[in-house]
Amino acid sequence: MLIYRINPKYLISYLSKHYLGNFYKTLNLVVQKYGGSSLASSKAIKNIAHKIKLKTENGAKIVSVVSAMGDTTDNLINLAEEVTNNPDSRELDLLLSTGELVSSTLLTMALKSMNIKAISLTGTQAGIFTNKSHGNAKILSIDSSRIRDELNHNKVIVVAGFQGFDDSMDITTLGRGGSDTTAVAIAAELNADICEIYTDVDGIFTANPKHVPNAIKLDSVEYDEMLELASLGAKMHPRSIELGLVYKMPILVASSFNDVPGTIITQGDDKLNNNTVGEIRNRVRGIATDENISRITIHGLDNKPGTATRIFEPLSIADISVDVIVQNSGNDGQTNISFTIKDNELTKTKTIMEMICANIDNSSFTYDSGLSKISIVGTGMQDAPGYATQMFKSLSEANINIEMITTSEIRITCIIKQESTGQAARILHSSFDLDSPN
Amino acid sequence: MLIYRINPKYLISYLSKHYLGNFYKTLNLVVQKYGGSSLASSKAIKNIAHKIKLKTENGAKIVSVVSAMGDTTDNLINLAEEVTNNPDSRELDLLLSTGELVSSTLLTMALKSMNIKAISLTGTQAGIFTNKSHGNAKILSIDSSRIRDELNHNKVIVVAGFQGFDDSMDITTLGRGGSDTTAVAIAAELNADICEIYTDVDGIFTANPKHVPNAIKLDSVEYDEMLELASLGAKMHPRSIELGLVYKMPILVASSFNDVPGTIITQGDDKLNNNTVGEIRNRVRGIATDENISRITIHGLDNKPGTATRIFEPLSIADISVDVIVQNSGNDGQTNISFTIKDNELTKTKTIMEMICANIDNSSFTYDSGLSKISIVGTGMQDAPGYATQMFKSLSEANINIEMITTSEIRITCIIKQESTGQAARILHSSFDLDSPN
Repeated sequence: MLIYRINPKYLISYLSKHYLGNFYKTLNLVVQKYGGSSLASSKAIKNIAHKIKLKTENGAKIVSVVSAMGDTTDNLINLAEEVTNNPDSRELDLLLSTGELVSSTLLTMALKSMNIKAISLTGTQAGIFTNKSHGNAKILSIDSSRIRDELNHNKVIVVAGFQGFDDSMDITTLGRGGSDTTAVAIAAELNADICEIYTDVDGIFTANPKHVPNAIKLDSVEYDEMLELASLGAKMHPRSIELGLVYKMPILVASSFNDVPGTIITQGDDKLNNNTVGEIRNRVRGIATDENISRITIHGLDNKPGTATRIFEPLSIADISVDVIVQNSGNDGQTNISFTIKDNELTKTKTIMEMICANIDNSSFTYDSGLSKISIVGTGMQDAPGYATQMFKSLSEANINIEMITTSEIRITCIIKQESTGQAARILHSSFDLDSPN
Repeated sequence: MLIYRINPKYLISYLSKHYLGNFYKTLNLVVQKYGGSSLASSKAIKNIAHKIKLKTENGAKIVSVVSAMGDTTDNLINLAEEVTNNPDSRELDLLLSTGELVSSTLLTMALKSMNIKAISLTGTQAGIFTNKSHGNAKILSIDSSRIRDELNHNKVIVVAGFQGFDDSMDITTLGRGGSDTTAVAIAAELNADICEIYTDVDGIFTANPKHVPNAIKLDSVEYDEMLELASLGAKMHPRSIELGLVYKMPILVASSFNDVPGTIITQGDDKLNNNTVGEIRNRVRGIATDENISRITIHGLDNKPGTATRIFEPLSIADISVDVIVQNSGNDGQTNISFTIKDNELTKTKTIMEMICANIDNSSFTYDSGLSKISIVGTGMQDAPGYATQMFKSLSEANINIEMITTSEIRITCIIKQESTGQAARILHSSFDLDSPN
């Protein structure tokens, strides 16, 4: 049922894996990424080396991108915070980059001790050229000449993820989870057959198993669905998905611990083709949930240009991450704006809101916390009516009140009371036919 | 008494420190090195940052070279050995280089949090270009353009010691203690006023205080004396002393914990000038000791070219460090060769000696362990007779038997039983008038 969702390039490999025996005999080049939990100890590193060895024996050329071992990054941040409560961002980047150097060299040593030709490359040696935004740098280009050269010498390349260099030859990092983006970017640059993300969960699920015990692992999702479903299982760096989408790079998310098929993130078919007679696809792919949300509502605003800026610019400067924003206007020239934040930023946000409202005549704000966000996600939804109605009706029948609504092309989101999250997720999971494999 | 031993360039600074008030007001550029014990915790790092801040307030420009924090390097080696019993040397170098990246970034953060302009540089960024001998690389040249540029921006430069890069842009390390060599090399390249080595001891002593409780800290030693006295207090990387000698760079060895004057390593005056009338210098500067030594003697060798090679080449391939070598020939065309090794390499050495003797007709070997090496060291010794006689006589009067003798221009060494080490050191310390400051 799902194979038609995979792009043609990948289809051949996929079929050969399931029907023709050995998957990797058909692959020339695989880029992999191993997360920190997969590399948390010397024993874990040797296990990963063994997995890589098996793949090379099947003829695949392999570039493995690694994260830092276990809690290394957190430990380094703690060390920096012991020294100063405001670590310099350039220095912090160089400090944090060492975590991946350690794991990449250890994995390479393990491979070489198994008689696999291998070499580690730092972000700089791998040619990952970025802008100068320390802590959240963007990859500008990749000079893959050294990677290609080492691949031509039949080596497994182990790249230190999460890091690059800027035009001053300073080390930059790509932000939390940035190794995912390193891997997809290298895969795109090398035109690899697939990018495999190995992590500590089995793949992407139709809902958070904490709320919905019968959530089902998806065989495949589309890139844009994955952006919305990131909370359901493997939490991937969003920019890695965007890169995958832009370069049409199939991404396999799978467990490095359990030898079970993972979830393939790939491009959907042409939407029209999906609506062929007799094949009514279930367009809801998963139920995404996000807890511990607070809502702020500002009342008594003039409905004129610049009002939103006067509210959100100070919040952005204070580094408060605003999620859902909803504005409603009456016909009296007045408007209310509501937005959501994480509960743990409520105190800080209230302080800033007091300053904001002091500067806007007649305005005031209210807030409530203990909310959660629940979304139905699927790429086909915008072509077919009735999804929103079905969602609201299902929640209302269960007496779950909707506090806010917001929609995107592939997602309908409701803000509800946090205590109803599990019940709402189970109801929607069932209502949209996700309880059994589709 | 000692000031005349200091070269003229340094004399001005030295005098200004002791007699004119503020030492560092006269210095333009100071290169420093801080050892791992000086940087073992975030608290220790903040202390060092504070010391640097004080010096910058006196107008000195500072380049600080740092070792890895505390036991970091040992911990990284252990991690590598958990993964494989034969870590690849290229990978091990990249792994070990992370230790200095961590300490350099943390020290820089600490400085910046005290409002000192500062920047860390990796070995590569600092332009430390080496050959490709991983684990024991030699500095070929230093491109100091970035260091100079950052100094011109009035920044304190914190350089990750111990590491460089080769012509493949791979990371190399300079061997244990290599940060000393990084510091002296940078000081020489920048033509700094002084290179300061901060460590966990107060300086260089006339003998190991363990054996000789009234050993005295030397105010100054010459470079070549320091090479022989390295076991007496601060253990410096030998190549750093050689570099100091070649480039006439004064090196101050001092404690980073105690605010007491250290020992200056510098060039001696012209030897003739030292022997001016009325100023008979004590040419023995210190008593060096080295314990846990074993001796191997090979008997029944033909005294012909190539014999020594047939013995020492296999030992060198097996990476056994041979120290003292003595050869004695009789007039029967036969010869014996003795050499010393560390006790902990005896088992391995015996195995190799069995193979060697099996290949040389009529040869055999004997061994004994539990020996130690004791030396008197001083640059003036070769010009004046009687030092050897005095040494042998002092030991013999105390009934200490001499097992082997070897000499160099500035050193006379005896191998004795280990249990006599302390007694011998005290006797020689007294016999050569080292018990009171000279």
